[in-house]
Amino acid sequence: MKKRIAVLPGDGIGKEVAKGAIEVLQAVGERFGHQFYFQYGMIGGEAIDTLGTPLPDETIELCKQSDAVLLGAVGGPKWEKKPAHLRSEQGLLRIRKELGLYANVRPTSYYPSLADASPLRKEVIEGVEMVMVRELSGGIYFGKPSERIQKNGEDGVVDTLYYQRAEIERVVRLAFELAVERKGKVTSIDKANVLESSRMWREVAEVISKDYPDVELEHMLVDNAAMQMIKNPKQFDVVVTENMFGDILSDEASVLTGSLGMLPSASLSERGPYLYEPIHGSAPDIKGKGSANPIAMILSAAMMLRQSFGMNEEADAIEQAVNQVLDAGYRTKDIMTFGKKLVTTDEMVGEIKATL
Amino acid sequence: MKKRIAVLPGDGIGKEVAKGAIEVLQAVGERFGHQFYFQYGMIGGEAIDTLGTPLPDETIELCKQSDAVLLGAVGGPKWEKKPAHLRSEQGLLRIRKELGLYANVRPTSYYPSLADASPLRKEVIEGVEMVMVRELSGGIYFGKPSERIQKNGEDGVVDTLYYQRAEIERVVRLAFELAVERKGKVTSIDKANVLESSRMWREVAEVISKDYPDVELEHMLVDNAAMQMIKNPKQFDVVVTENMFGDILSDEASVLTGSLGMLPSASLSERGPYLYEPIHGSAPDIKGKGSANPIAMILSAAMMLRQSFGMNEEADAIEQAVNQVLDAGYRTKDIMTFGKKLVTTDEMVGEIKATL
Ligand SMILES: CC(C)[C@H](C(=O)O)[C@@H](O)C(=O)O
Ligand SMILES: CC(C)[C@H](C(=O)O)[C@@H](O)C(=O)O
Repeated sequence: MKKRIAVLPGDGIGKEVAKGAIEVLQAVGERFGHQFYFQYGMIGGEAIDTLGTPLPDETIELCKQSDAVLLGAVGGPKWEKKPAHLRSEQGLLRIRKELGLYANVRPTSYYPSLADASPLRKEVIEGVEMVMVRELSGGIYFGKPSERIQKNGEDGVVDTLYYQRAEIERVVRLAFELAVERKGKVTSIDKANVLESSRMWREVAEVISKDYPDVELEHMLVDNAAMQMIKNPKQFDVVVTENMFGDILSDEASVLTGSLGMLPSASLSERGPYLYEPIHGSAPDIKGKGSANPIAMILSAAMMLRQSFGMNEEADAIEQAVNQVLDAGYRTKDIMTFGKKLVTTDEMVGEIKATL
Repeated sequence: MKKRIAVLPGDGIGKEVAKGAIEVLQAVGERFGHQFYFQYGMIGGEAIDTLGTPLPDETIELCKQSDAVLLGAVGGPKWEKKPAHLRSEQGLLRIRKELGLYANVRPTSYYPSLADASPLRKEVIEGVEMVMVRELSGGIYFGKPSERIQKNGEDGVVDTLYYQRAEIERVVRLAFELAVERKGKVTSIDKANVLESSRMWREVAEVISKDYPDVELEHMLVDNAAMQMIKNPKQFDVVVTENMFGDILSDEASVLTGSLGMLPSASLSERGPYLYEPIHGSAPDIKGKGSANPIAMILSAAMMLRQSFGMNEEADAIEQAVNQVLDAGYRTKDIMTFGKKLVTTDEMVGEIKATL
């Protein structure tokens, strides 16, 4: 097969890990007889510095004409104090809108070989296998008004959480589709005792669940979910929630298994292309030090092979290689524990390629 | 001293733990020569069943005429499906408004004797000493509109996050005041890369911090905070955030030390009376079984003595008694671990009184 892949390395360690993933994809292409064409686009801080905007039109075009998008990471202190339209995260928010990426899907998996790197006890995380589905293109992230206002002569500020019913429906349906292929349980997280939007969310989840008689639907309040995630993460299979709750809870979930530097994500749209990125940030503090963990980016590439190209065997090959390299004791700095072999980003990539 | 205390036991285990706290307060009163007058009011489910409203006017009046309010817990499945004005949590939300309770203050402390009950590793939680200050009377909890709407012919729903600058100022100032008496660090949590309200929050925090040159101010994004809370909770001293973020993060923080059933809270207003309550819920599943942990409620009473009545010695006496009883190995079911002495709610209260 021939596939066009847009690569947006971004800032900080984004470039380093994107390079690693591309090498692994090239190796997979050779082994399985595929041709991957990589085309590069700018996003985030680098795009601001070079072209004066966090998301140049060329990048949007490139993505739209590609079969899938691989994103490294964006941002850094340099762009944090700028006016909104010159801040790096605007690149992220806009590409989600431009590509219609309505759902971010994040698997959190337990790696026995990494259990020691988790802040949680082994008994609590052993066997955790959950996937978090976060609504990505609506809610309080995009609602208007979002501005300073004067009310009764007082200075104030307003943000708006808005959802169309149809936006809730499609993301909840996606969660049920995933649950069918997994353990058959959807936990829908909301704040229905306070928010009207959550009450609509709960209603929609109930309606959609009628189409999936074999999937169990459970509702959970977001504050309770923040506790349950730590107390008993094994209870979850597919978790679905709105944009802001998902931002908070998926980051919380990502540290449970001690493998933040190992977790991939996929952002899905109705027609494609989909976008794949590691869940970690651009980590400017370790940029250029060779200590970044490339595995999250490499596993994002594996998700792309499976989800966008239907290349299951190829994706499996990458995932197995990663597991073998971990079992063999290779560790980047973030997951290093006593008695293991510390390697650089490039060395880790090399080991994974050699094991493919 | 003579003090009038409004007691709102509420639902589920609320009654059981409130009874325990009152016994302890009576013992403290006798020992230190104070007279506490307890007057009871209804709130939540019980009030709905008896008087058709989750917060009767009598209860509001009672609270306003008291020197402090002790609340047990409200809610239960029985009232969850009712229309909004007949749901138990409305009692909570309304009493906050009626008493002007703008800040909820929750200390999270590490109890060496309970380290085994935490889902986190001992190294991670050892020595955690933070206090979370949550804005309690504004934000998306109370903003209007909060309703179903039609936009461009589509069914939708809207909620509104609104803050007056002055509301942000008073709660941030409170956090700085607390930090002066503690380790001198305030972590202000927001989502300034997305929300306009968070950008105002950050500005206000900067301005207020000028009045406290000896306190270090740090800003943290809410998604990162949800991670840091688990990865390295020791970094926090005073944490301050808006209502919804605070709801989520304070519940997350409450499970870190494994002592959910032990954590008190205070809700403060500009003029008083203040309200004190355990952070746990009404736990209808264990109601009447004698297994509820009364310590969170008893420590809430201690907070009341210190904060509302200036009775520091008396509060210390309660806290020391609790520590001694734990050191002696007494445990209610929620914190029971191997080799300890399992006791009922009443027995735990008895031990604490006997140790006073
Ligand atoms: C950078 C920021 C706008 C973004 C978000 O909140 O969506 C990030 O936290 C994420 O989760 O991808
Ligand atoms: C019951 C609910 C409305 C309430 C809240 O969200 O404030 C509760 O979760 C709390 O934290 O006291």
